[in-house]
Amino acid sequence: MNGKIGGIDLAERRIQSDDKHIQNLAAIVGGEHSILYHKEDLIAYDCDGFTLHKHLPKAVVFPKNTEEVAKLVKYCSDNQLPFLARGAGTGLSGGAIPINGEVIISLVRMKRLLNVDLENRRAVVEPGYVNLKLTNSISDKGYYYAPDPSSQYCCTIGGNVAENAGGAHCLKYGVTTNHILGLEVVLPNGEIIEIGKNGILDTPGYDLLGLLTGSEGTLGIVTKIIVRILKKPEAKQTILAYFDKVSDGSQAVSDIISAGIVPAALEMMDKIAIEGVEAAAFPVGHPKDIEAMLLIEVDGISAGINDQINQILDLCKKRNVREVKVAQNEQESNRWWANRKTGFGAMGAISPDYLVQDGVIPRSKLPEVLDRIQKVSEEYGLRIANIFHAGDGNLHPLVLFDARIPGESEKALKAGSACLKVCADAGGTITGEHGVGIEKKEEMRFVFTDEEIMAQTNIREVFNPNNLLNAGKLFPTPARCVEIKKERKVSHERRKVGTT
Amino acid sequence: MNGKIGGIDLAERRIQSDDKHIQNLAAIVGGEHSILYHKEDLIAYDCDGFTLHKHLPKAVVFPKNTEEVAKLVKYCSDNQLPFLARGAGTGLSGGAIPINGEVIISLVRMKRLLNVDLENRRAVVEPGYVNLKLTNSISDKGYYYAPDPSSQYCCTIGGNVAENAGGAHCLKYGVTTNHILGLEVVLPNGEIIEIGKNGILDTPGYDLLGLLTGSEGTLGIVTKIIVRILKKPEAKQTILAYFDKVSDGSQAVSDIISAGIVPAALEMMDKIAIEGVEAAAFPVGHPKDIEAMLLIEVDGISAGINDQINQILDLCKKRNVREVKVAQNEQESNRWWANRKTGFGAMGAISPDYLVQDGVIPRSKLPEVLDRIQKVSEEYGLRIANIFHAGDGNLHPLVLFDARIPGESEKALKAGSACLKVCADAGGTITGEHGVGIEKKEEMRFVFTDEEIMAQTNIREVFNPNNLLNAGKLFPTPARCVEIKKERKVSHERRKVGTT
Repeated sequence: MNGKIGGIDLAERRIQSDDKHIQNLAAIVGGEHSILYHKEDLIAYDCDGFTLHKHLPKAVVFPKNTEEVAKLVKYCSDNQLPFLARGAGTGLSGGAIPINGEVIISLVRMKRLLNVDLENRRAVVEPGYVNLKLTNSISDKGYYYAPDPSSQYCCTIGGNVAENAGGAHCLKYGVTTNHILGLEVVLPNGEIIEIGKNGILDTPGYDLLGLLTGSEGTLGIVTKIIVRILKKPEAKQTILAYFDKVSDGSQAVSDIISAGIVPAALEMMDKIAIEGVEAAAFPVGHPKDIEAMLLIEVDGISAGINDQINQILDLCKKRNVREVKVAQNEQESNRWWANRKTGFGAMGAISPDYLVQDGVIPRSKLPEVLDRIQKVSEEYGLRIANIFHAGDGNLHPLVLFDARIPGESEKALKAGSACLKVCADAGGTITGEHGVGIEKKEEMRFVFTDEEIMAQTNIREVFNPNNLLNAGKLFPTPARCVEIKKERKVSHERRKVGTT
Repeated sequence: MNGKIGGIDLAERRIQSDDKHIQNLAAIVGGEHSILYHKEDLIAYDCDGFTLHKHLPKAVVFPKNTEEVAKLVKYCSDNQLPFLARGAGTGLSGGAIPINGEVIISLVRMKRLLNVDLENRRAVVEPGYVNLKLTNSISDKGYYYAPDPSSQYCCTIGGNVAENAGGAHCLKYGVTTNHILGLEVVLPNGEIIEIGKNGILDTPGYDLLGLLTGSEGTLGIVTKIIVRILKKPEAKQTILAYFDKVSDGSQAVSDIISAGIVPAALEMMDKIAIEGVEAAAFPVGHPKDIEAMLLIEVDGISAGINDQINQILDLCKKRNVREVKVAQNEQESNRWWANRKTGFGAMGAISPDYLVQDGVIPRSKLPEVLDRIQKVSEEYGLRIANIFHAGDGNLHPLVLFDARIPGESEKALKAGSACLKVCADAGGTITGEHGVGIEKKEEMRFVFTDEEIMAQTNIREVFNPNNLLNAGKLFPTPARCVEIKKERKVSHERRKVGTT
């Protein structure tokens, strides 16, 4: 390729590195315009949506197809170069941060919608395809793609697979893993395998589809994805309810679910969160003196919607709702949703910095856990806002802090960890949809024994025996595990030497 | 324990074996009344629901709790005794057949319902708990357990987990894996791990829950199961439709799904199947000259049901339905379902023997695949009935044969395999819900490359390094895999010796 692109003379952009690996990687992807290796270019890749830890990659390469990915992986593997895959870099737990100076394999150029098969309800996309584009491209035919992380306007479906992304509508429709029918994967040795060919679910053999989905880029690199698409519900309605007391709000959540209603979404914001969203880009006039707001969406066939709405209104009233209203039109509903979906970023309007956490609890523990998170806030002297998927007990405590104050970042991290401990102690877990990455590795001990961690790291070793793919993520390295391995080896050897 | 049980003097039942393993295994489970080891007792365990292959186990032990299971497993592991777990033995692919003379760990005494938590919609059961009992025990409170294999009146939930069992209502509600929230598992080395503690879904780390579910008893022994329970739908209705032509019936199936209706169940039977069910225990008067019958159930909130029913009736009429009717009451619906659910066994009324197959195809290929199965029938000179979950493309060709005619069993097996090849070639797969076991090992090659099989057997090796747990099931042993391993070793060694 010659000439100019974007005013840059490509001749001047010939590989200026005498690092043979850079030259070889560039050769695989077709030259200088498909690789970054100058420090000033690499800075943009030193973190992802988790910004409290930064590290420069060795290089960033931009393959165009599966074969190039496989060649890159094989090259890295053969040459003992650490590597990892990256989508849009919106992950919130640091899964795409090159903590070992990895070669980043960016999948943003593999962004095609390869096939839509309405009859069998599935679509095939490349990993760099943006989540929302899929729904936009099939919406006029009456279909959509269900998983809707708040970052869906820019995050990629490949990244969604890596993190098993959720979203507001996962209460009714399930998270990413429930919508993935097949994957093409480049294994860490460069082999290409297909899982769930032709998008047939429940294939024989082990559930590699489930195993790969949510493995946070530690088992392989996904290069093609078959997703399930759904028919848009005939009708939907959105309800907004304001409660003076958090406990009434959370009790209403329990009541709605207990009544057998499965709303498409059931979101909650607390007082500080409301202060934030009302100060940011999409205010909708929530009263500022309430303790809890519920945003509820029901969908389905038109004939049944009104019954559900009336039932929900009644249940809210029984729990002393101050005000409850149904959106009068789609515009109003969209405004309410924009207010909610930009909620994390909105915290920037009331705090210089914020740390999003992501715990899960049994729904019935909601009032108790919110109380205990309030205590964490008092203990650390940091405000904590709560914006969350109340219907499925997926909390997002947002720890507000100021990184310019020495020690406050560390304090925020500790407060965040304390919130996760509260969730784990309540019988819950430490992440619902944001992943573990580097952020929550240590917190894995809140929910897993050493044996349980080893059962997982053993699987990682099978896929990734040289530990070159996204190493040091997802699992802590428990001293105890090393001991167990030694013990096993000894006992195994003893057995061999022994009686039999 | 002393005295008599069932007329048997226990004193006479003291361990009569001088096999030290039998004595030691008996000691773990509490003596003679918890172990079988005499040949006449073992014969009942020489096969499961797949009866074309038989092999005697070394012994059958009946542990009462997780600790006993762990001790048994550890004993077998330490003493290099092959072992496997067994539930009710209703599996259709031979997964519980002790082809290596295994010690069978029967879980039928671990059959308690441990906990029901309506608020958080979950129940905890032991693996030997019978599927239908769960629904029966919570039905009066308005709840049920969704996966409903036809054998649900006797199959166990532990077995359902092993096989990732399906059922007629999986079209709308998903298979077993979609309803499992947590597992307690004894690993092949005797370690006990918990996955999905407290029934929180989407736990961090790898999806071991998905990996274990459907692993056909090759990765561990499940000793406790947390399942999701659902609120019973407010209303349901059943429709029966008769078509003169198979192609019209299958086109109606496509039309219903394409219209965005998700029936709770959408079943189909062809002419030979109807001949069978009408000759068996629950005839309902289906006309015998039709080519296809559809049994359709819709459920949901009352207000919406009639709309759906009318839409389905219209769609059937557009496809030249001869007769279509809605069940007038629950009794009628139950009779139609009994007729369908006992369909496999009903083949015994028109054939001395039958072999059930279990393929999956993209729904849109239904007419084409049924044609090709008809050709298989002609080629082998054996009648093939079709009873199946049409809505999700899960076919059950039933090959009718007479085992007394020399060579006909082998011919039936070949015809069954040919049906699976038809499914695989149509872009489908070789099992939807019955598993691979020993029956379909070779057919795995229809859908997986050697690399893809190895990616799975490698996982098995991690869990089960000594290959003592249920060995020789699920995967073929491809010569090519052995070669690949050798190649890899060589290339790995070459690398070590080489340049770096």
